[in-house]
Amino acid sequence: MDVMGRIERALYAAVSRADVEACPPRLAAAMRHAVFPRGARIRPRLCLAVAAACGEDEPEVTDAAAASIELLHCASLVHDDLPCFDDADTRRGRPTVHRAFGEPLAVLAGDALIVLAFQTLAYGAAVTPKRLAPLMLTIAGSVGVPCGIVAGQAWECEASVDLAQYQREKTGALFAAATVAGAASVGAEAEPWRPLGARLGEAFQVADDILDATANPDAVGKPVGRDLALDRPSAVRELGLDGAILRLESLAAAAVDAVPACPGATALRSHILTETMRLLPKELARHAA
Amino acid sequence: MDVMGRIERALYAAVSRADVEACPPRLAAAMRHAVFPRGARIRPRLCLAVAAACGEDEPEVTDAAAASIELLHCASLVHDDLPCFDDADTRRGRPTVHRAFGEPLAVLAGDALIVLAFQTLAYGAAVTPKRLAPLMLTIAGSVGVPCGIVAGQAWECEASVDLAQYQREKTGALFAAATVAGAASVGAEAEPWRPLGARLGEAFQVADDILDATANPDAVGKPVGRDLALDRPSAVRELGLDGAILRLESLAAAAVDAVPACPGATALRSHILTETMRLLPKELARHAA
Repeated sequence: MDVMGRIERALYAAVSRADVEACPPRLAAAMRHAVFPRGARIRPRLCLAVAAACGEDEPEVTDAAAASIELLHCASLVHDDLPCFDDADTRRGRPTVHRAFGEPLAVLAGDALIVLAFQTLAYGAAVTPKRLAPLMLTIAGSVGVPCGIVAGQAWECEASVDLAQYQREKTGALFAAATVAGAASVGAEAEPWRPLGARLGEAFQVADDILDATANPDAVGKPVGRDLALDRPSAVRELGLDGAILRLESLAAAAVDAVPACPGATALRSHILTETMRLLPKELARHAA
Repeated sequence: MDVMGRIERALYAAVSRADVEACPPRLAAAMRHAVFPRGARIRPRLCLAVAAACGEDEPEVTDAAAASIELLHCASLVHDDLPCFDDADTRRGRPTVHRAFGEPLAVLAGDALIVLAFQTLAYGAAVTPKRLAPLMLTIAGSVGVPCGIVAGQAWECEASVDLAQYQREKTGALFAAATVAGAASVGAEAEPWRPLGARLGEAFQVADDILDATANPDAVGKPVGRDLALDRPSAVRELGLDGAILRLESLAAAAVDAVPACPGATALRSHILTETMRLLPKELARHAA
């Protein structure tokens, strides 16, 4: 099965735990709405690519790690969109969860998706009990305190913020989890994979800033021009559009350099370059190439 | 160390993961506010009592399970108190987390506490990797979908609700997790412990209804008389005060009968009777005795 098929199957199996008669049907629907139809699935694809490069031996474990990371990503989007944060109306071209199901179910769907991420991991890693704790700690650490995405979001509630730390946690943490968990899911030494994830997280942040400044809202499925409107820091505002594209290219190169020695290093390097350029709007990607 | 000392130490160690320089300080403070000073700690004490009755061998694992359950309970209180649910001003005699820290930090503190619960479990069970997955699945199942406390809360967003199922999930699920996880933390056969937890959860619900109908708000640290004001179902409204007390006594007796064969069954039975009567306001407990 291709990579995307594996990811969707694993996510579908996970969300189906809610799709039983015993579950409140609107909660199940809100969870499905948050996870499907698919976004780019960048983080789980990265997790699978790293596992393949390390010599994957237990696909079930890798699929569980990849799905767990994507579920946590979806949960964070649901809570970030809430009225008390971004108060967003659309996401992936559709109403956000709280617009479609109301605020109580958006809070609960986010909570349930966080829990489901860890359930998915525990089910998937049942075949190799020794891999569960390291995977749990890697993935949970990238979401919780002191340095995960929840902590990153919480910097918005502080009087003073270190911007680099804010972005490292809010965006980079889950990318680092994807590379580290990819390696951990095959039982490989995992920590050397962290710098790769961190650089890709930074690259993604720059690409997101470029998208916000240049893209058509219909093409990205969410409002654009928000960085300028909300006076938020952005690579485009700081470096100009061409400068931001150069920065993205240099981060992609740095990511390629950060791939640790492994059986599939060459294929992984090529995957990273292709994927990073795919983050750009089509016209700009052609321009950069 | 006594039971309460063990629980507070384990919770303090868990929450201290947020109490480092790298963590947004207001998020760390909101998490502390949600967990300390202590409530009754009924669920973790139950977990420790069952583990002791089963012949506890790895106190670290049991402490982690107990702390994990209490962190999830605290997280659920923080989110339940939010304006979009109960919009509560006070909890344990102090402002609720969103009153003290604002709504964004209340959402994030709840999220971070859920993640911290699973981190705590993964750290604590490191010594016995084979016990981690069953503990994870027991505890996660009691919180998430299809039948955990989040699902219970989500029934409030449905047009029609089975009251017994609603209460079983919203209150009973975490009590069942406490008894099942207590046994699983020792490596004992765990599922036979579920009926005990379920009955105690029901007893707790009745005791809570009695408290709501009879207690002084200063004594319980939260508003009372809410069931009548909000037209919510309640054992007191259904059976009268004396009837509700009789119902509590009969549930306590049923719980005692549900204790599975184990080395410490006698002590556990006595613990259960004492604890159930302690749930009542003092005057009523004397009256019932």
